[in-house]
Amino acid sequence: MSSDVNRLQQQLEFIIETDELKQVLRQTVLIGDGRRENDAEHSWHLALMAVILVEHSADPVDVLKVVKMVIIHDLVEIDAGDTFAYDEEGQRGKQERERAAAKRIFALLPADLSEELRELWEKFEARETAEARYANALDRLQPLLLNYHSGGATWRDNGVVEEQVIRRNQHIEDGAPALWRYAEQMIERAVDEGKLER
Amino acid sequence: MSSDVNRLQQQLEFIIETDELKQVLRQTVLIGDGRRENDAEHSWHLALMAVILVEHSADPVDVLKVVKMVIIHDLVEIDAGDTFAYDEEGQRGKQERERAAAKRIFALLPADLSEELRELWEKFEARETAEARYANALDRLQPLLLNYHSGGATWRDNGVVEEQVIRRNQHIEDGAPALWRYAEQMIERAVDEGKLER
Repeated sequence: MSSDVNRLQQQLEFIIETDELKQVLRQTVLIGDGRRENDAEHSWHLALMAVILVEHSADPVDVLKVVKMVIIHDLVEIDAGDTFAYDEEGQRGKQERERAAAKRIFALLPADLSEELRELWEKFEARETAEARYANALDRLQPLLLNYHSGGATWRDNGVVEEQVIRRNQHIEDGAPALWRYAEQMIERAVDEGKLER
Repeated sequence: MSSDVNRLQQQLEFIIETDELKQVLRQTVLIGDGRRENDAEHSWHLALMAVILVEHSADPVDVLKVVKMVIIHDLVEIDAGDTFAYDEEGQRGKQERERAAAKRIFALLPADLSEELRELWEKFEARETAEARYANALDRLQPLLLNYHSGGATWRDNGVVEEQVIRRNQHIEDGAPALWRYAEQMIERAVDEGKLER
């Protein structure tokens, strides 16, 4: 009984700690009001997309596993911070920062849960399983959708051009070919409409 | 092929429309900085809790179904707005507002997905299945945790007293008895610590 109480206490402390994800700001802005999106909102949006778009996954997937991945994929940013996708400088050292963060944050949980979530995060990062490829495709498509529908300010403000957007996002195709075809057309429209520089 | 493209277009329009959930503010404030939480952040937190705390569900549940429920349970508030849990005036008419919202919002999706999500939402509201009872327990526990750990400002600012908090939240017990026992103790501590009036 006492160990059960400790276990619940540990689980709830993790839930409390992760409230911080709502404070980690991304470069992407919301469609409606131009406010910067945070990681918790982004993760929720990916979970919804994972459910709605699963028929477009390149391979059959365990949807629950995908949803778990996207819910936890950014928790490491509580410590490591968000690195802008097109910030090549910032990408250096990112892996080490995130590994240290994963070690601390997942260790707050009881061992069985800690291992499960840590493994899901590593699989997400490695992009080798069908679930990870699909989850990563969603993680790239979502900011593209937001950038396009909010007028492309994130791209323009950061001097990001079409070729970078294509290079950065083309692995959407590995996880969801139909979503990549859609994204390619959207990128082309963004250029035509002056939202993105060629 | 053309109907496939239309289907994907409909799915993505739904994804875009639901970006609005990030703008629906709740009464609860974040632990770290006192900013009001929005529905997307709240829904993400519930999804994480659903995964972490599932062993405490009163009955065995299909976790994917629970996660889907909590991800979509507040989408109706894009149209209907958030009604504060302790606002008895606001509770009147809430059901009609939310039914109308569900009709509009889920209808943006292709029929099969529209039906699936609409049914999940109705089951969540009815609290009759094991999944719905567990999901509802989480939906009540999460703001309790945030209110307690942010010093009780939401309770005090709205003149909410202990008895109301107990009455409003005691059905946590139907979905997760151990979580209700924890919540009862936390409510008692909140009173002892002056965060909540007796």
